[in-house]
Amino acid sequence: MTTIKRLDSLDPNFNSSLSSILEFDSSEDKSIEETVNLILKDIKNDGDKALLNYTKKFDRLDINSPDKLEIPKEEWVKALNNVPKKQREALEISVSRIREYHEKQRASTWSYEDSDNNILGQKITPIDKVGLYVPGGKASYPSSVLMNAIPAKIAGVPELIMVSPTPDGHVNSMVLAAAALGNVDRIFAIGGAQAIGALAYGTETVTQVDKIVGPGNAYVAYAKRKVFGTVGIDMIAGPSEILIICDGNTPAEWIAMDLFSQAEHDELAQSIMLCPDLDFINEVEYQINKLLYKMPRFDILKKSLSNRGALIKVRDLYEACDIANMIAPEHLEISTENANELVQFIRHAGAIFIGRFSSESLGDYCAGPNHVLPTSRTARFSSPLGVYDFQKRSSLINISEKGSINLGKTASILATGEGLQAHASSAQYRIDGNIS
Amino acid sequence: MTTIKRLDSLDPNFNSSLSSILEFDSSEDKSIEETVNLILKDIKNDGDKALLNYTKKFDRLDINSPDKLEIPKEEWVKALNNVPKKQREALEISVSRIREYHEKQRASTWSYEDSDNNILGQKITPIDKVGLYVPGGKASYPSSVLMNAIPAKIAGVPELIMVSPTPDGHVNSMVLAAAALGNVDRIFAIGGAQAIGALAYGTETVTQVDKIVGPGNAYVAYAKRKVFGTVGIDMIAGPSEILIICDGNTPAEWIAMDLFSQAEHDELAQSIMLCPDLDFINEVEYQINKLLYKMPRFDILKKSLSNRGALIKVRDLYEACDIANMIAPEHLEISTENANELVQFIRHAGAIFIGRFSSESLGDYCAGPNHVLPTSRTARFSSPLGVYDFQKRSSLINISEKGSINLGKTASILATGEGLQAHASSAQYRIDGNIS
Repeated sequence: MTTIKRLDSLDPNFNSSLSSILEFDSSEDKSIEETVNLILKDIKNDGDKALLNYTKKFDRLDINSPDKLEIPKEEWVKALNNVPKKQREALEISVSRIREYHEKQRASTWSYEDSDNNILGQKITPIDKVGLYVPGGKASYPSSVLMNAIPAKIAGVPELIMVSPTPDGHVNSMVLAAAALGNVDRIFAIGGAQAIGALAYGTETVTQVDKIVGPGNAYVAYAKRKVFGTVGIDMIAGPSEILIICDGNTPAEWIAMDLFSQAEHDELAQSIMLCPDLDFINEVEYQINKLLYKMPRFDILKKSLSNRGALIKVRDLYEACDIANMIAPEHLEISTENANELVQFIRHAGAIFIGRFSSESLGDYCAGPNHVLPTSRTARFSSPLGVYDFQKRSSLINISEKGSINLGKTASILATGEGLQAHASSAQYRIDGNIS
Repeated sequence: MTTIKRLDSLDPNFNSSLSSILEFDSSEDKSIEETVNLILKDIKNDGDKALLNYTKKFDRLDINSPDKLEIPKEEWVKALNNVPKKQREALEISVSRIREYHEKQRASTWSYEDSDNNILGQKITPIDKVGLYVPGGKASYPSSVLMNAIPAKIAGVPELIMVSPTPDGHVNSMVLAAAALGNVDRIFAIGGAQAIGALAYGTETVTQVDKIVGPGNAYVAYAKRKVFGTVGIDMIAGPSEILIICDGNTPAEWIAMDLFSQAEHDELAQSIMLCPDLDFINEVEYQINKLLYKMPRFDILKKSLSNRGALIKVRDLYEACDIANMIAPEHLEISTENANELVQFIRHAGAIFIGRFSSESLGDYCAGPNHVLPTSRTARFSSPLGVYDFQKRSSLINISEKGSINLGKTASILATGEGLQAHASSAQYRIDGNIS
């Protein structure tokens, strides 16, 4: 049986075999594009009226008054109070650790003065209004609410508007509880492209925001891509991935379960191990086959492991680091002796889990760092979600009279060279003029 | 005559009048989309062959060997050596000031240890390969090369690949000189959507990059939007804008020329002044009409000022700040007494020029901060180009044995709540297991 593929870096076809495992069809469906374009147009033109129509159509909610789309704060507080004690404590530990980590990401305004008494700097401000999309149904995770809301609030975002569909009126009370803990400001029971449209363009009831974050299905993803520019967006997330570099001395069932913890997300999720020890690879495969049948999400696991998983024999741990950089994984576990020494060779990864005790699941919930991470090799150019995604910068340029003379000469020469005479004259006026 | 519109914030229709001035048609042309989609597909499938074909078609360059698309470094060094002394000095002052400012933006890796000896942090790495698009023809500016190349190199980008079309073989030697000063690594004489495709997908000759930055025409902008995800991109720039808040005590011809310095860029550029002093507004209008006819770029100025410019009478300077926040301008000049005090009221602007001597043109060339700034109200959620655009972050999570027990409990409870059993088991294994 082949629950999971086996590759060897010495195989002459290794690169193409690996590429074919990494690939997935990310092309956007034409029919999704057309549907979303129509929904966005309707929301832009008809506001609440269109929003109610689409919510009736897709979520089967027959609401006649748009203000009923909002879930009042009393309901979230009630949801939070009803969370069982053990879970409530776990949520609060998680909140406090996520907060501690993200507070270190907060940027501050800075400036300096040069020898002509010009003051130059950068002012940091929060985004005014942020929309947070939270999927409904099976992919609705309270931990995701916390991972998005906490950095936004640390950045100082005054208005954080959450949207989440409630198909057939089904509300996820843990998600509401997490929203209350995360200090979300308002929640609307809307979803899909219509919710993205409402946030991007505003309706009579839903506040227009400046940026939209949070994961969603293909309709939501395309709608976000489409409204980008009108508002800011976070990343467009692909399937989740884990890459484990192991020296062969971690218990094989730990590694098997770590591979599962990614593969159980969905059928496109990707779990790969790199190891120089063939005996250990065999042992991990054995554990996979043994443990698989006990897992509640067996069907998903089976599909994602067999379609997109791999156990890869490498020459050594340095080659493993090279392959990791090529893959640029969302999650990288370095499950080796002296794992810290290998970190220096890693250039591209969303999150690096260092050492045998650092299982990815700890990072997903409560280690502190964000679990919203770049997928599909985008760690080559992007970063985990953070406070920096909710702050922005303005350059500060305060030129002294003396500075305007010195800099004016330089600017005037360069502007003239570029054929921009008004730029040159504007600089020249300050050199010639005297208003004191 | 109406060279520039006049508005008054007390006018009952003020908001809609202002909105109509701010609006511009940003919709993408269907025919541009189709052309670009075809070009990208061809480049992806046929690499150099398609690249040569399109370069022949659009730039009329009949090159038979793809390696001739590269402009060898000797040519840039020659171009730099041929720059007249005065301009060379101006370029070097500019380089040194841009460098001084941007070095303060460089982020560093950090970490901290918690009470369970878990180490958490964030590792900073540069992007490996960056593509820099530089337009050909009239919008080809050496200053833009510096503003993009310098932060990339300060971030530590090892491979910075510049592309710039050379229609009919015309090479802009100042652009080559700036590339030499900015430590660009390679230059290819290619442009348009075909250059974006070559950078995003790689060809036999052109290196595949991880991120593409730099301005371009509508074809380039759409191509960048299209390849976003495969590679990172900077922003999609709209028309340039200046907003000036003036108390009425700056020489009117300075303000007029500052408005020109934006309006001369292109016909869609936007120049707006906010002022509480009606006499001064009249004086600025008089200076505009007087100075306009002397300007070499008269035709462009006339169109942009009359279509998109405005002199706006406001109640006071505080109202001016409120309007500025609504407009979220690319460039904001605060040309008032005690301008620094007004800065605290500004939440959204790409760059803030503080005081009467701080003309925008100084910032465009040599003050130090970047001149690549968010346009079209995107300063509500985005920032000037900076070193941070060429660095990325990886979370560091190093959990101790003790930490894995404590965090494991929390993670296990939350994962079970979310129905993710493999996540819970993966955490639980570390609690139960003992490998020492």
